[in-house]
Amino acid sequence: MMSLIEKDYIVVAQNASGRNMHVPVYRIRGNRPGPKVYIQSSIHGAEVQGNVVIYHLLQRLKSLAVCGEIVLVPNCNPVGTNIKAGEYTLGRFDPVNGTNWNRGYYYDENAVHAFADTVSPHTSDAEIRTRFRAFWAQAIADKLASPWGLGLAQQLNLKLQQLAVDADYVLDLHNGPVSTRHIYIPEYARDSAKLFNIPHCIFIPNVFAGALDEATFCPWWTLQDALSKKFSREIKLGVEAFTLEMGSQEVIDFAEGDVDATSILSYLTAKGAIQDTHIRPAQMIRRGVALKNYKTLYTQWGGMVEYLARPGEQISAGEPLARVLNIDELDNDRGSEVVPAPCDLIPILHFPSASVLSGTQLYKVFTEYFTITTDTE
Amino acid sequence: MMSLIEKDYIVVAQNASGRNMHVPVYRIRGNRPGPKVYIQSSIHGAEVQGNVVIYHLLQRLKSLAVCGEIVLVPNCNPVGTNIKAGEYTLGRFDPVNGTNWNRGYYYDENAVHAFADTVSPHTSDAEIRTRFRAFWAQAIADKLASPWGLGLAQQLNLKLQQLAVDADYVLDLHNGPVSTRHIYIPEYARDSAKLFNIPHCIFIPNVFAGALDEATFCPWWTLQDALSKKFSREIKLGVEAFTLEMGSQEVIDFAEGDVDATSILSYLTAKGAIQDTHIRPAQMIRRGVALKNYKTLYTQWGGMVEYLARPGEQISAGEPLARVLNIDELDNDRGSEVVPAPCDLIPILHFPSASVLSGTQLYKVFTEYFTITTDTE
Amino acid sequence: MMSLIEKDYIVVAQNASGRNMHVPVYRIRGNRPGPKVYIQSSIHGAEVQGNVVIYHLLQRLKSLAVCGEIVLVPNCNPVGTNIKAGEYTLGRFDPVNGTNWNRGYYYDENAVHAFADTVSPHTSDAEIRTRFRAFWAQAIADKLASPWGLGLAQQLNLKLQQLAVDADYVLDLHNGPVSTRHIYIPEYARDSAKLFNIPHCIFIPNVFAGALDEATFCPWWTLQDALSKKFSREIKLGVEAFTLEMGSQEVIDFAEGDVDATSILSYLTAKGAIQDTHIRPAQMIRRGVALKNYKTLYTQWGGMVEYLARPGEQISAGEPLARVLNIDELDNDRGSEVVPAPCDLIPILHFPSASVLSGTQLYKVFTEYFTITTDTE
Amino acid sequence: MMSLIEKDYIVVAQNASGRNMHVPVYRIRGNRPGPKVYIQSSIHGAEVQGNVVIYHLLQRLKSLAVCGEIVLVPNCNPVGTNIKAGEYTLGRFDPVNGTNWNRGYYYDENAVHAFADTVSPHTSDAEIRTRFRAFWAQAIADKLASPWGLGLAQQLNLKLQQLAVDADYVLDLHNGPVSTRHIYIPEYARDSAKLFNIPHCIFIPNVFAGALDEATFCPWWTLQDALSKKFSREIKLGVEAFTLEMGSQEVIDFAEGDVDATSILSYLTAKGAIQDTHIRPAQMIRRGVALKNYKTLYTQWGGMVEYLARPGEQISAGEPLARVLNIDELDNDRGSEVVPAPCDLIPILHFPSASVLSGTQLYKVFTEYFTITTDTE
Repeated sequence: MMSLIEKDYIVVAQNASGRNMHVPVYRIRGNRPGPKVYIQSSIHGAEVQGNVVIYHLLQRLKSLAVCGEIVLVPNCNPVGTNIKAGEYTLGRFDPVNGTNWNRGYYYDENAVHAFADTVSPHTSDAEIRTRFRAFWAQAIADKLASPWGLGLAQQLNLKLQQLAVDADYVLDLHNGPVSTRHIYIPEYARDSAKLFNIPHCIFIPNVFAGALDEATFCPWWTLQDALSKKFSREIKLGVEAFTLEMGSQEVIDFAEGDVDATSILSYLTAKGAIQDTHIRPAQMIRRGVALKNYKTLYTQWGGMVEYLARPGEQISAGEPLARVLNIDELDNDRGSEVVPAPCDLIPILHFPSASVLSGTQLYKVFTEYFTITTDTE
Repeated sequence: MMSLIEKDYIVVAQNASGRNMHVPVYRIRGNRPGPKVYIQSSIHGAEVQGNVVIYHLLQRLKSLAVCGEIVLVPNCNPVGTNIKAGEYTLGRFDPVNGTNWNRGYYYDENAVHAFADTVSPHTSDAEIRTRFRAFWAQAIADKLASPWGLGLAQQLNLKLQQLAVDADYVLDLHNGPVSTRHIYIPEYARDSAKLFNIPHCIFIPNVFAGALDEATFCPWWTLQDALSKKFSREIKLGVEAFTLEMGSQEVIDFAEGDVDATSILSYLTAKGAIQDTHIRPAQMIRRGVALKNYKTLYTQWGGMVEYLARPGEQISAGEPLARVLNIDELDNDRGSEVVPAPCDLIPILHFPSASVLSGTQLYKVFTEYFTITTDTE
Repeated sequence: MMSLIEKDYIVVAQNASGRNMHVPVYRIRGNRPGPKVYIQSSIHGAEVQGNVVIYHLLQRLKSLAVCGEIVLVPNCNPVGTNIKAGEYTLGRFDPVNGTNWNRGYYYDENAVHAFADTVSPHTSDAEIRTRFRAFWAQAIADKLASPWGLGLAQQLNLKLQQLAVDADYVLDLHNGPVSTRHIYIPEYARDSAKLFNIPHCIFIPNVFAGALDEATFCPWWTLQDALSKKFSREIKLGVEAFTLEMGSQEVIDFAEGDVDATSILSYLTAKGAIQDTHIRPAQMIRRGVALKNYKTLYTQWGGMVEYLARPGEQISAGEPLARVLNIDELDNDRGSEVVPAPCDLIPILHFPSASVLSGTQLYKVFTEYFTITTDTE
Repeated sequence: MMSLIEKDYIVVAQNASGRNMHVPVYRIRGNRPGPKVYIQSSIHGAEVQGNVVIYHLLQRLKSLAVCGEIVLVPNCNPVGTNIKAGEYTLGRFDPVNGTNWNRGYYYDENAVHAFADTVSPHTSDAEIRTRFRAFWAQAIADKLASPWGLGLAQQLNLKLQQLAVDADYVLDLHNGPVSTRHIYIPEYARDSAKLFNIPHCIFIPNVFAGALDEATFCPWWTLQDALSKKFSREIKLGVEAFTLEMGSQEVIDFAEGDVDATSILSYLTAKGAIQDTHIRPAQMIRRGVALKNYKTLYTQWGGMVEYLARPGEQISAGEPLARVLNIDELDNDRGSEVVPAPCDLIPILHFPSASVLSGTQLYKVFTEYFTITTDTE
């Protein structure tokens, strides 16, 4: 059995030469019914490993039994991918105005409640889903048609969101600076933590800050809660969305990408998007943290840093995180100084340059973390 | 009579060489009691005209009768001032992460309400002011002492805010890209529009988005409203804050700076911060607009642009705003195209480069604007 | 009579998305024989006025009698055009490695002499031209085929140079930072100074520093000199090349572009590339300078600058060029200081930002300049 | 025995705030006579490991017997160190104009010959050295005093060169992008290759391209050759200069820095700059290459790259160097492609980002390399 891959392009921007900038859209339509899956990568231009993951997913999906439809959009930000500043890619924000490329997706809590008001008790979940998708798609289209226009990042975000709006499962593939693999999971879907082979899981609340995962789960989560309350019964609409951080930026690794693809196929198998695979979640230690305990350690000083604690290691309070070189103090004891861990923690990522100013995100770390138990099934 | 100028420095950051970065603080203490005034410039590094305005203010205040205290902080962002990218100054946002340098000041609406709850009916306005300032100063100090640290822009903002926290009048001097002079005025202080010699006035609601003017007036406005409601009488606490946009970025002009200084001295005279001056607001046409009618016109296309409508001009619907060169269409009718004004408007600023991508802020314009009437005195 | 415009594209680079980057090539072939003309613009991405000049040239050439062939290449650097850093275009150098986009054209003095050795006394000038063009085209092709590859800027330059290699007249359209119009003229073609309507002319020697004009005239100049010496008679091969600086970068102006186009048409008419026009060089004052007297005034200090002397003005020694604001000295006499002209001069361009570090090119100026006399014809 | 470390600062620039920018100068004067050594690091801002090496050198020199004088200048470019563009340091070139920070040192071949003409046959080598140093120091001072000023990079370079001008041994500590350790050695000092513990040695000719090592050895080499020819005897003036590439940029590693320090102490011991150490060059395989065989492999395409060949590995012709992901071809065989080694080679460094345009320096490699034999002593 071979799944057919369709390829298409959408125009998301026009550059200063007046040339269209395209995003490739790969699409596999299964022979059997099933959920819709949307996977994109590289909204931040320097976060490129997700493109390799999509490469491997496409290779492997060719010979798997897809149910429903899987849409894969690698390199989804052709502007951010192509802004160099020195040898690196200035891909996290619009170089013109500093706008983070992952903060302009659409969400409006009031609109969800307005929709919820229109739902009557006897509406089926399937009908709710269908009607809400149409409602939400219209809201995005209206936003895109704003008479005075929209900023570049927002235009890009909304055009991508249109591809994802009717998906049941949305995966946004990112990278950290120098990072171990980790995943952001909405709390209502916390069981899905065990379906990916990702060792570090951050559980996040129903708060919108502009990212694609939030723009996907916030409306569904809010709608579920509103309807559950309205009808005094638990309603689950089944849409899930995640941000997966596939290691470090500025690097691709084909071998690791294949492992990452297996992890995603494990989730898709569990969700019924592919059938007849033997891919099951790995037996592994997964650690979780509530978002509020996922801390950023900022520097209070500037200097040159050796990062001693490696992403993924368990570090005890007081153990060294970093060693700082103070260039003006090489003749005395302050020439090099150690930054100790303020508490027990697991570093998840660190700043990618040895040169730091005060106020730099030195490390992001798990504190108060816990082990995610896997029930024997 | 000569006012004495004190000069001081505060450290706001440390660079990658481990060197402290200083902001100069000029201070004039009057012989007579009066309000406290805080004026800063260049929080956005390329917006430099305010520095010249402060230069002229200092020259002129030397021989004026200052009441109370005036604090002037030019070049308040030594990081943003010194980041070049090509010949221009990349001064609007932290080059590391895109954070706008004017979005990290402190405000917490709930804290204001918590404070309001503690105020009893017989407290004098003066005492309310004193206690609220101490309360707010503590909140800023607590924030700055966050155990995991803070980002560079926020550290900078909070250290500046500490200088401004007990001021009655706060002026934050900015520039637009290519811009006519304009000013942001909180609606509750709309009468002050007539005290500056600035032709374009934007009236803004009690909404916090991170800037210094908002961080100053939102707490006082919210407190006024809460107490007025609580005690069922109108309470005015008298604190005002404005963002003044002194023309175009990347340019200084000493002659215009002297005119700008006169405009500010006119306001300070009216507010009793200086005495015995003959400086009165100019007789001039001032135009106002509600923030919601201050529109940004974004491009839907990329290309090369000639900006035809000059900032400050009245433009009628359909008149040309810009002419676009389409480099791939020079052999046909689409080689150059006109962008017409979508409605009657006054352009206030436009993008500073001919080269634009889609989603660029081409113009910011007054629509539905009105003339601000000055009562005959 | 209508000239037909052909449009074509060449691929000059591939971006990080793997997409081809194209340069448009407009071509007008005359019905009558005549010289070949090559005109390009925007090799430096922020220098965009030349694109408008080419727009006007195309509009006007449509109804003129072209002799020979005119090739016009606007926006010839699609990489440099599309690198933003803040609102401006980082277009002068490759953002990856700092390579100036106008320094990688091909020239090899030894190759010219090797060719000259092969020319026998009875070869006609026409045959010399034909053979040398073929020889030079091959050398460029060989360079482009380097087995280990070439850097991006050099690849771009050589692909453009291939379009220009058989041209008799080559015009490279640039802009200065904030600049009056000026032109670089090889000394052997100094009479052509009077054929353009450009008020400031810099006469340059037979020295190659990597730019297109030099890469065009150095080989022909060297060949002329070598053959003149070899055959003891003056040989003129008639190829000319110029860099035209069409005012300030980051700005386009259609009205001025039409004036610029007239200036170029005046030159082309004089050279027989178009016929039956009434376009003659303007009666105007043209000032010239030897390259060694075209001086750059560097700063010895950092600070904020008002540029007092306008490009194109005659300034006497001691008159003010600039006024500097010293932010840490606003309480004393050093708060503002004047930079005087070190000698009689004409400023041609100045730095485009008020914020300067030490070692900044504050002004480039004509010194020891002279008036170019136009003989009555 | 303890050597005393003196610390001093020189001002090398002024920033846009008008603030001086300092470079620290650490100096150890031995109790015994001996040569002068000059060591600097981080002229390219992102190349920071040399700072750690200097840290370790200072720690260890404290308790060693220094003969003569050792000057150590870490972080010698405070401008380049502090220009961020995204999270990385834009440290290789001046962000204003693209000028490489390591290309503005002084050299003038004609001046050397002019000096050589003044030397009479009976002048001792010591006197030649003394007089030439004075002569050269004056030339640098004259250059720095240019009446119209100099560019920032050149000012910085010349002020550093003044510290190095009377040194016998000059070490300039750099890093490659992602790099193995290597060293540039002037051919006349090729025996010194065996005195450092650096596995990859590039032997360079007497050609000046602007760097500090060249600016140091070119005059001495040229003078040696001129005098040797003039007096028909071999004259060796004993000055040596090297560029050491201490691994990868953007990273510091204290442990490796100590190893690097040992390597330098081994050289200094051999040259008599320190006494009574047991530090001898390591027994190790050193590989050498002539500069002309140190090749740069440029890309002919753009895309995402996994760097398969590690710096320092021996690779045979045809073995894979890199794997490229073609984002628009994920549905076909061109989705991923291998770049094979064009010949037997050792990769020394590769580009530090997965995202490459055409014309990128993918790898720099040793070809036609050889093993440097160490004589049994």
